[in-house]
Amino acid sequence: MAAMHPVRRTVFYVSDGTGLTAEALGHSLLTQFEGVQFTQIRTPFIDSEEKARAVVERINATGESDGLRPILITTLIDHSLAAVVHEADAFCLSFFESFLAPLEAELGQKSSHTIGRSHGSADSLNYQRRIEAINFTLAHDDGVSEHELEKSDIVLVGVSRCGKTPTSLYLAMQFGLKVANFPLIPEDFERRKLPGSLERHRAKLFGLTIQPERLAVIREERRPGSRYAALSNCRYEIAEAERMMSREGIRWLDSSTKSIEEISTTILQELRLG
Amino acid sequence: MAAMHPVRRTVFYVSDGTGLTAEALGHSLLTQFEGVQFTQIRTPFIDSEEKARAVVERINATGESDGLRPILITTLIDHSLAAVVHEADAFCLSFFESFLAPLEAELGQKSSHTIGRSHGSADSLNYQRRIEAINFTLAHDDGVSEHELEKSDIVLVGVSRCGKTPTSLYLAMQFGLKVANFPLIPEDFERRKLPGSLERHRAKLFGLTIQPERLAVIREERRPGSRYAALSNCRYEIAEAERMMSREGIRWLDSSTKSIEEISTTILQELRLG
Repeated sequence: MAAMHPVRRTVFYVSDGTGLTAEALGHSLLTQFEGVQFTQIRTPFIDSEEKARAVVERINATGESDGLRPILITTLIDHSLAAVVHEADAFCLSFFESFLAPLEAELGQKSSHTIGRSHGSADSLNYQRRIEAINFTLAHDDGVSEHELEKSDIVLVGVSRCGKTPTSLYLAMQFGLKVANFPLIPEDFERRKLPGSLERHRAKLFGLTIQPERLAVIREERRPGSRYAALSNCRYEIAEAERMMSREGIRWLDSSTKSIEEISTTILQELRLG
Repeated sequence: MAAMHPVRRTVFYVSDGTGLTAEALGHSLLTQFEGVQFTQIRTPFIDSEEKARAVVERINATGESDGLRPILITTLIDHSLAAVVHEADAFCLSFFESFLAPLEAELGQKSSHTIGRSHGSADSLNYQRRIEAINFTLAHDDGVSEHELEKSDIVLVGVSRCGKTPTSLYLAMQFGLKVANFPLIPEDFERRKLPGSLERHRAKLFGLTIQPERLAVIREERRPGSRYAALSNCRYEIAEAERMMSREGIRWLDSSTKSIEEISTTILQELRLG
């Protein structure tokens, strides 16, 4: 019966910050329930009693129109705000309530119960580092000089449009790493060796590859009907790039079936930067 | 005494996926304990018994050298892998164990206990959308045609180097939104009106501003000693930009003291895209 009439539930992520952690958490829980259709609502910056009361009203109104009580996933650090939100007629999973008390006991310390530490401006050094990394990565998205290879934390290699750009931007944004991209082009395959400037930076190199069919679709959008986008050429370039990476001992992976997060995490792990 | 000899504890994030959610979780918890210095280790892709046993050995070895048992924050969905990891001599906060059972009861369904749903390839439509959004955003980082304003989900306006680029990339990467950037330049201030092409897209416009002192530092790195970077010019441009945004009724915020996540979340909230 569940298959015929999928249950619908509304989920509220209630946070005094961005709510991104609550949402990531919730997402990983909800994907475990295939028979339910979830409507997910993130309510960030609930940092005053007034806002907390407004959220409670919204939750209760939603529950009435849904005919089923909403699910709350909360990361409210302030006790009194949490108390207000918990008055809602909802099923509540409270992240700090569940984990902070046992952690206090283990650490033998009271927590500071301070709002907004996670993505706050206290992190401003980290912020600067991320911005610099993003700017570096944007400036080195298509090849780099020797001097700049030196400054990179990671150098991604692979054929044109194999996924280097989004991966490098994610690594910069999430981890503050300076990532340069180095496209492997047909001239490199003809010479049968790695571009000379990369030689000295082997420890930073990581290769990306992609399924030829997918590459052809991506390139076709860019340059319709071109030799560059032709499936036969995509097959040739990818086979040559993979052969070169194997011969040169460069670690690589296929980006076709992985998320940006999975690719990035694998790169950090392989290069021991994690 | 804690202040004189800060306690050191090692934290392991153990996940069958990327571990990014576990880490975000843990980070928001740990920032609540100022008197403790944490060494944080993310161990992703623990998806076999062999890897689980290797992690347990690493955790136990760390505990012995630390002289204090490590803290584990786990997002292992598979019962048998979780059971192996829980054998470690550690203090364990298990995310799925704490939250999945109550959620199963509330939903009246068993969870599927499937590994890798959160950032997995099941999400590939979402992946395509994100990649397209990143490419769009990269291609429209410095002004856009009317045709392309049409295709944008958000148009960020503000003076050069006020933080539009990292914000737009984050919005594209995290939410799959197509974000165009539209720099406000001295010519716009002299004309005392919004560039004409923006008029029809008011609902998509959001402004960023920045403290003049900070802008001067950022610009000085780009073009040392230039009029562009001079504090007096930065003050002038920012005052004019803020005046124009106020006059035109464009919502805006100061990026100086906020994280990329906070800025992005605020934009979604203000434009009701959240």
